[in-house]
Amino acid sequence: MTLSPDGLEAALRAIGAERYHNRHPFHRLLHDGLCSKGQVQAWALNRYCYQAVIPMKDAALMARCDDPEVRRAWRSRLADHDGETDQDGGIARWLGLTDGLGLDRDVVVSQRRALPATRFAALAYLDFVRTRPLLEAIASSLTELFSPAIIGERVSGMLRHYDFVTPETLSYFSDRPPRAARDSAFALAYVKHHATTPARQRAVQDALLFKCDVLWAMLDALQAAYVTPGQIPPGAFVPSDHSGEPA
Amino acid sequence: MTLSPDGLEAALRAIGAERYHNRHPFHRLLHDGLCSKGQVQAWALNRYCYQAVIPMKDAALMARCDDPEVRRAWRSRLADHDGETDQDGGIARWLGLTDGLGLDRDVVVSQRRALPATRFAALAYLDFVRTRPLLEAIASSLTELFSPAIIGERVSGMLRHYDFVTPETLSYFSDRPPRAARDSAFALAYVKHHATTPARQRAVQDALLFKCDVLWAMLDALQAAYVTPGQIPPGAFVPSDHSGEPA
Repeated sequence: MTLSPDGLEAALRAIGAERYHNRHPFHRLLHDGLCSKGQVQAWALNRYCYQAVIPMKDAALMARCDDPEVRRAWRSRLADHDGETDQDGGIARWLGLTDGLGLDRDVVVSQRRALPATRFAALAYLDFVRTRPLLEAIASSLTELFSPAIIGERVSGMLRHYDFVTPETLSYFSDRPPRAARDSAFALAYVKHHATTPARQRAVQDALLFKCDVLWAMLDALQAAYVTPGQIPPGAFVPSDHSGEPA
Repeated sequence: MTLSPDGLEAALRAIGAERYHNRHPFHRLLHDGLCSKGQVQAWALNRYCYQAVIPMKDAALMARCDDPEVRRAWRSRLADHDGETDQDGGIARWLGLTDGLGLDRDVVVSQRRALPATRFAALAYLDFVRTRPLLEAIASSLTELFSPAIIGERVSGMLRHYDFVTPETLSYFSDRPPRAARDSAFALAYVKHHATTPARQRAVQDALLFKCDVLWAMLDALQAAYVTPGQIPPGAFVPSDHSGEPA
């Protein structure tokens, strides 16, 4: 059965309601103020791997897209993340956060101390966008439909609970919501317009599920390494306040 | 400083001694008989993702190799895993194991219920072999230097402890050690011959570290989802004897 465009949108929003990573226990720990500074450091250091891959996946998407209109709309994502200089843009603001948390910038950028599972998840996202049909690549960006809400929770929770976090170090998040809303509106309209068969509508939903898995797996890895009694994999970042036994 | 070929081999063996996944807690649980049947099922179902990718990565390696001698030596790996029919070969034997554990073969092959982190780790291995220099791609296979020992431990421990496991269902492992020894001897000789500068020797060691991370991350994911109080990610396999709360 083919869904109407609005029916497809409803199905996509239902996936987000069930599978977006705001439902992960680590997100709740983080925004409820229950993380140690070391756990927040681990989150920021690991999430950098994802941030670093975003403009690469956006470039990969445009590299496979023969429609100038889509490329034009997509291009702002590159500028948002890479900025005009190394002082602005999303990656620079993320490094402002890791700086503010006292992490060595070279270590963060090298990704050497990130959890392998995080790097593998980010790479899976890049590979998906490089290799799947364009419609699915665009649909995999639709987790941004749900990000304004999570960012609001995260910023207010972190500012309220952590004295080592400031509005300045969280500046990455302050301008994301309007950009995410603009970008996800474009991607959603594209998907609603082009996913006109049951197979394409299934593929679009699977792409969003895949992307939810990517985000979820990154928090799973943090939870296992830094929250549950589990162990930090060999070679990964060990916070100075870590109480568990590193592997 | 450039290591001698034997010095390089010693450095590679030292990486295995420290980082190979026989040191992971899940390996100990598995071979000491401390896993439930559901945990053994989860291990076999997830590990299938890795088995499925091996002949793809071997083909990717040969696709980038302009030396007929290397391709000829490497070719037996494809036959080992894919067999002559769908009844023999490593993948078929792995499916014999999952059959023997009572898992639905279609579910296993679809990888739909595998942990996303497992799929991402297997994909990272495939991507590494597809994209890194040939020397590094070959070096990433060197975990096989260490597999005969782990297979011996695993088979004897599983047969001793689990009444739901038989020599027949473990037939995958019975012929792996001589093949692994043959294949890793070739790869080691290649690496020792071609890694003749400090940079190449470093790259070779990093490739082996990367591969150890892949294997380790797969066991980390199992440990987090099926052993520690952690949660099974949404959509993943839930064993019928699972006592935890699924996510």
